[in-house]
Amino acid sequence: MDDILMMLPGPTNVAPRVLRAMSQTVVNHRGAKFGEIYTETTEMMSQMFKTENQSYLLTGSGTSAMEAAIANTVNPKEKIINATGGKFGDRLKDITTIHGINSVEIPVEWGDVLDPKILTETLDANEDTKAVTVIHNETSTGVHNPLKEIGKVMKNYDALLIVDTVSSLGGDYVDVDKYGIDVCFTGSQKCLAAPPGLAAITLNDEAWKATENVDSHTYYLNMPKYKAKGNSVPPQTPYTPGVNSIYGLLEALKMIEEEGLDNSIERHIKAAAASRKAAKALGLELFPKSEKIASNTVTALKMPEGITDSDLRNTIRDKYRVEIAGGQDHLKNHVFRIGHLGTISYKELAITYTALGMTLKDLGLDVDTGAGASAIAEFYSE
Amino acid sequence: MDDILMMLPGPTNVAPRVLRAMSQTVVNHRGAKFGEIYTETTEMMSQMFKTENQSYLLTGSGTSAMEAAIANTVNPKEKIINATGGKFGDRLKDITTIHGINSVEIPVEWGDVLDPKILTETLDANEDTKAVTVIHNETSTGVHNPLKEIGKVMKNYDALLIVDTVSSLGGDYVDVDKYGIDVCFTGSQKCLAAPPGLAAITLNDEAWKATENVDSHTYYLNMPKYKAKGNSVPPQTPYTPGVNSIYGLLEALKMIEEEGLDNSIERHIKAAAASRKAAKALGLELFPKSEKIASNTVTALKMPEGITDSDLRNTIRDKYRVEIAGGQDHLKNHVFRIGHLGTISYKELAITYTALGMTLKDLGLDVDTGAGASAIAEFYSE
Repeated sequence: MDDILMMLPGPTNVAPRVLRAMSQTVVNHRGAKFGEIYTETTEMMSQMFKTENQSYLLTGSGTSAMEAAIANTVNPKEKIINATGGKFGDRLKDITTIHGINSVEIPVEWGDVLDPKILTETLDANEDTKAVTVIHNETSTGVHNPLKEIGKVMKNYDALLIVDTVSSLGGDYVDVDKYGIDVCFTGSQKCLAAPPGLAAITLNDEAWKATENVDSHTYYLNMPKYKAKGNSVPPQTPYTPGVNSIYGLLEALKMIEEEGLDNSIERHIKAAAASRKAAKALGLELFPKSEKIASNTVTALKMPEGITDSDLRNTIRDKYRVEIAGGQDHLKNHVFRIGHLGTISYKELAITYTALGMTLKDLGLDVDTGAGASAIAEFYSE
Repeated sequence: MDDILMMLPGPTNVAPRVLRAMSQTVVNHRGAKFGEIYTETTEMMSQMFKTENQSYLLTGSGTSAMEAAIANTVNPKEKIINATGGKFGDRLKDITTIHGINSVEIPVEWGDVLDPKILTETLDANEDTKAVTVIHNETSTGVHNPLKEIGKVMKNYDALLIVDTVSSLGGDYVDVDKYGIDVCFTGSQKCLAAPPGLAAITLNDEAWKATENVDSHTYYLNMPKYKAKGNSVPPQTPYTPGVNSIYGLLEALKMIEEEGLDNSIERHIKAAAASRKAAKALGLELFPKSEKIASNTVTALKMPEGITDSDLRNTIRDKYRVEIAGGQDHLKNHVFRIGHLGTISYKELAITYTALGMTLKDLGLDVDTGAGASAIAEFYSE
């Protein structure tokens, strides 16, 4: 349908074998055959999350899982600490508020990450906190939060740790059980490199216990129903799932299994480092406050002076057939973003930084056109 | 993956061209190309609904649309009249209750339909009613409610008419604008014969006005957000949609357009009449109170004495490779159901009633084994 190389922070380029898996015959979602497929897929998701607990599939976007995580574990009028600092951090705060839950915001500066010390202080000042929400990888600003350190802080408190790994799982280190994450979720169309349409979520015993005290779950996203139906014979979902999307996700998970999860993560880490080197070689400046906190799955760059977002993205898309992302909310026109997740390798980065060099030159910037591509070659030949 | 003929009340057998469409390359859901696909699909959905109003796609099951219809239009503590009479009527009541809305139930007997007179009386007794919910086609009992007559009653009242056409749209007469339906929704995997994973919903001006007075929408199913993003340039969804599922739905809608919507409906009506004749020829008894109210998309039959649900369905599936549905909730073991929707023709019915005749004989019933298949041949040769 389209030969554009997608370098967005999701959806990503999807492998032909995954796309082909999508067109398998629909089976009865209440039957034994689907039960096997669902079990295999959710077990592989638990391996991705590095958890001993069961995972569940929601037919919906990552946002549906965000809402499920919050609405099922905390009652209206109770308290959640929302660490913000980007579009998706804000979204978890909005979902908290819309469900009548009191939100205590830790307003992280955009481009920075959550300071575990400030989290500690905020928890100490709010002893009645029921949960803390954190975006692991904030695609809007191109940073990743220090999950392991956040987990360590949380071990001293009763509050649940709810972590969004929508744009990190499979491309960055997430270890749900070791880090002490109580609720974790992701989307199909990011590092897992399946088509969009599904989210996966896992809850530990503490989180399930919390669901028992919650009065008003939403109906479609009611997690206890997913648990009950997941444990039935054959295993199934409470409502009709996107069966073909599950075929695609299963195939994508098999690809990661073949590669090895940690190899996939290291491949993402390498791609991110290469991307930052190439960007610097083109004279571009990273948006995150420091390289240390920069994301492994998306490079957020400051828009060069005198260039508009539409000029940049239209030229690179229409002339060079590469799609990159703009800034979101107040970062629109100030930031642009290159996603490098899923099936990412030197190939896509070579194309992208070649195209970006040419685009910047086309737009009148005094730039060493080939410096980005050259940096990619040098980085990967080391 | 499986050569079983699916004769369930959804999901249905999906045409190869629709399955193939699912495996097209994923495009950016914020880009112009997706905007075109989304617009084409939603415009065709509005044609299916027979409405001048805009339609929207939800990545989720029919249940997600049920919740969207209720949670966006009525506030907690306000009043909804829920006509029940089956599993899905009950579900709309449950969703009403879970959102803190007062439910006034019209408890229709299972196997019967809503009496417009009783609806009138209930509305007269509850002047503060904000909405009435009706399942058009109740798959659990195999009946379809008299939508046109219900619409006529509702024209005398301010309350919104919310209609679930999940298992009827494309296979039964639905005329949203003429009948005066304010909120109507359906699923992708029923008469439209696309894979599961999507729901479509349309609201008229009255319903949109009601959304303005509702405080707490759910987040993922917030319809005003779908409207705002649907009207943006390019048109899009607020959250990442199941892009490949939309490819499939669009292809399935093109098939219906080629056939003609009314031809598709008449084909379903014919299949339902044939199915009932064949069932009778095998000595089986219809579950609905009368043939007049029997569904056009599913035949619900009483379980013959001495035969268990698992014997019947396992034999017809494992020995003859046809999958039919059992009874739901308290009808389990008392009813079985044959779905005839989507790409249904005499072929699937000939197979199914041949298989059913043989199955009943296998299970020791004194039955004219070929009478069902014979009835199908006679009916279609007329």
